[in-house]
Amino acid sequence: MTKPESKKSGMAMATGKCASTAVSEELINNGSVEPALSPSCQEQGTPTKPRTMKQMSRESLSSRRNTECEVFDDGTNTFFWRAHTVTVLFILTCALVYVTLLEETPQDTAYNTKRGIVASILVFLCFGVTQAKDGPFTRPHPAYWRFWLCVTVVYELFLIFILFQTVHDGRQFMKYIDPKLGVPLPERDYGGNCLIYDPGNTSDPFHNIWDKMDGFVPAHFLGWYIKTLMIRDWWMCMIISVMFEFLEYSLEHQLPNFSECWWDHWIMDVLVCNGLGIYCGMKTLGWLSMKPYQWQGLWNIPTYKGKIKRIAFQFTPYSWVKFEWKPASNLRRWLAVLGIIFMFLLAELNTFYLKFVLWMPPEHYLVLLRLVFFVNVGGVAMREIYDFMDDPKFHKKLGQQAWLVAAITVTEFLIVVKYDPNTIMLPIPFFIMQCWILGILLILTWTLWRFFIRDITLRYKETRRRKQEVPADRDRPLGNGSTSTPSGRSKLNGSSEPLRQRKS
Amino acid sequence: MTKPESKKSGMAMATGKCASTAVSEELINNGSVEPALSPSCQEQGTPTKPRTMKQMSRESLSSRRNTECEVFDDGTNTFFWRAHTVTVLFILTCALVYVTLLEETPQDTAYNTKRGIVASILVFLCFGVTQAKDGPFTRPHPAYWRFWLCVTVVYELFLIFILFQTVHDGRQFMKYIDPKLGVPLPERDYGGNCLIYDPGNTSDPFHNIWDKMDGFVPAHFLGWYIKTLMIRDWWMCMIISVMFEFLEYSLEHQLPNFSECWWDHWIMDVLVCNGLGIYCGMKTLGWLSMKPYQWQGLWNIPTYKGKIKRIAFQFTPYSWVKFEWKPASNLRRWLAVLGIIFMFLLAELNTFYLKFVLWMPPEHYLVLLRLVFFVNVGGVAMREIYDFMDDPKFHKKLGQQAWLVAAITVTEFLIVVKYDPNTIMLPIPFFIMQCWILGILLILTWTLWRFFIRDITLRYKETRRRKQEVPADRDRPLGNGSTSTPSGRSKLNGSSEPLRQRKS
Repeated sequence: MTKPESKKSGMAMATGKCASTAVSEELINNGSVEPALSPSCQEQGTPTKPRTMKQMSRESLSSRRNTECEVFDDGTNTFFWRAHTVTVLFILTCALVYVTLLEETPQDTAYNTKRGIVASILVFLCFGVTQAKDGPFTRPHPAYWRFWLCVTVVYELFLIFILFQTVHDGRQFMKYIDPKLGVPLPERDYGGNCLIYDPGNTSDPFHNIWDKMDGFVPAHFLGWYIKTLMIRDWWMCMIISVMFEFLEYSLEHQLPNFSECWWDHWIMDVLVCNGLGIYCGMKTLGWLSMKPYQWQGLWNIPTYKGKIKRIAFQFTPYSWVKFEWKPASNLRRWLAVLGIIFMFLLAELNTFYLKFVLWMPPEHYLVLLRLVFFVNVGGVAMREIYDFMDDPKFHKKLGQQAWLVAAITVTEFLIVVKYDPNTIMLPIPFFIMQCWILGILLILTWTLWRFFIRDITLRYKETRRRKQEVPADRDRPLGNGSTSTPSGRSKLNGSSEPLRQRKS
Repeated sequence: MTKPESKKSGMAMATGKCASTAVSEELINNGSVEPALSPSCQEQGTPTKPRTMKQMSRESLSSRRNTECEVFDDGTNTFFWRAHTVTVLFILTCALVYVTLLEETPQDTAYNTKRGIVASILVFLCFGVTQAKDGPFTRPHPAYWRFWLCVTVVYELFLIFILFQTVHDGRQFMKYIDPKLGVPLPERDYGGNCLIYDPGNTSDPFHNIWDKMDGFVPAHFLGWYIKTLMIRDWWMCMIISVMFEFLEYSLEHQLPNFSECWWDHWIMDVLVCNGLGIYCGMKTLGWLSMKPYQWQGLWNIPTYKGKIKRIAFQFTPYSWVKFEWKPASNLRRWLAVLGIIFMFLLAELNTFYLKFVLWMPPEHYLVLLRLVFFVNVGGVAMREIYDFMDDPKFHKKLGQQAWLVAAITVTEFLIVVKYDPNTIMLPIPFFIMQCWILGILLILTWTLWRFFIRDITLRYKETRRRKQEVPADRDRPLGNGSTSTPSGRSKLNGSSEPLRQRKS
């Protein structure tokens, strides 16, 4: 008797503009609202959810979420999706009983200390993966993102611990993780011969190019592909990509591995690797924003092909938000976008400086792990920052992952400053200093012009025009808050207008 | 212009049965749904919320929340309530910069290690207090409960670390916290002369009683007052109170400080201290369940007296749920209540055994801190367990605090077993063993009779009665799922019936 009902409920797909994705997804995946007790119950329960969402979104979110896709979800909540809190607790207890009571404790204090710390981290992960607060992402499984959240916390605490040690102790502490660490890095020679066609080498005159074709080429490409998926904006990606090469030029007197040939900077990195990565990323973004978001339970799909497709699509996002950063729309967004670019570049620089001050060889697995970590964590953080910026209400909260990533970037930078103040303080060459001062001045001038002078001028012109044209209706309220007349200002600052209307 | 509007919106109080307290409170306090941008916006926004709640609760929660109070909330969200994520991040950064860059790092490795660990814990608390998932409680401030959640995590990780050390190292490790610890406890003499009227002591024949009147009397009273507020059930409190005295009798051969005079056990502890505590607790519970739950913003209250009352009431719960444990309503609840009592008693025993195995003097501040910790954390955990048990849906999640408290109780017990297996394994006297076996057999028999034999008998009688009385309507479906006839079984198991109807 249950089969046809189940199918019927599966077909009666709930249509809801996924306006409040963060909220709705959390509700769905915690299973805290949705009943989904039985097929017949689902039939009643599922249509409630989108109605709820719609109501919640009507006032607070309607203005901002026009960049979001439509989502169809039949609300199936299978075994796979459940939290398994009690199961995890039971398994954890059994594991603890086995390891601590049935196995004999070694007498080595140092080994036990390490084991105790690892066990604490594992228990923390057990707790976090089942119980931590869900973020904006839910695919392939919310537990996946909870896991990375916990890893973020552990990494940040590790950094804080390192930050509080003396330079010598901190470097030696790395020996506890890998006994091969804690040794000064050998000096390396970069740059050198920059001829594309080297007539001196008769056997292979293009050897300089082939030398650069190492593992870093696909790494750069892949890195920028993923960064594009994070930032979701062509212009911001290009600016960060170019800015980083400028930073490499500016800092090559501090870190020798920033010094590269001019064609390595601009052709190999910016154009070929990064450019191709950004291009492919933008193509994928296009696909993701066009792709239909239909989530049916696996058992509600009749064909095998459909089932396999559904399983594969589990690894694509639940819904999609196009990022429209609109840096020029108002001063707050402009400063926020500048801040994001600054933090992004700082995090990229940290990769190199941290290796340098903690004596990590570039090919060490920890360096790779840190990148894998940032790939998983950066996307969530960027989405949370976008939500934070885009949120019209006043009581908003910066997302937890964004908070932690910001804290990590700051802590990493503090470690770099503390561990090697000499390198950081090496005076920047005068010519480069001039360039930077010029750049900063340009940005400042543009900011002043765009958000202060131009606004005042426009408002003045508008006022004068109105006074001249319509001297009759003098009693109409005047200024930026007037909602009835589409003033010049409101046309310019388009997206900020709903906010201002709301406040008035 | 805004003042009158604000008052109007304050008066237009949103009435909503606080059916989904956990959900609704979270939404209110995260400010993630509520717009509350401006008074005029509140006016639109606030009535939406309770409507949303009502819809969410209709299917999934209507059956369970008849024990919950009505809440009136005008939805004011002031500065006090905001999360201040960015502010905390900024202050944290400044503090880190000051401590690590501007202060000189000491050269003492052990001191730096301690400092690093303390700093990591503080950063974790900063993160958790602003960002952790909210639990069921929100008064006086959600951040207060997030703080205790984080403390719970830290305490559990500390216990796990201790658990993985050797017995000697673990005891010596306590020296890092307080150099006075890590020393064997002196033997103490308990029990002794049990005469209420001691004719041997002519100056004060009641000296035995006055000797017992120490700080533990108010401690017992206060402890049971708080435990009653946690458990919210007269019978469960009394059972746990009496059971604990039985445990003291049974285990006095292991821990000498369990041995007390008979009148100390039954009159001083159970009747006077615990009984009075439970009585006062029940009175407070009665007041809390009758008290009106009206939450107006401080600025919406006209009088000063009202404002002061509102501030005082900030320290009372946001809403109130009467706990109806109903242990006899079905097998699952019966086992759950037995499990809760078991864990509760285990946690109480841990207090004494942990002191004993870790060589903590009973008057040490860490012992007191642990109790303060449990007072704050136990209430949340008990509420979450109640919600978990009372939740009719299948995809429920055990609350985070309950999960952690269970893990802590288990870990503490494992530490006791690992650190002093000899004391734990001291054979229980034969007479006491007999009593326990008898008790367990009684419980087992009752369980069998109540949930298996009685049910079968009743169902058999019901079937026979129906066959005799109404031989005509044979086509009606028969069994426990039939909803139309109020069968004997459904009358007995009252509360479980909605669940079964749903499943059928």
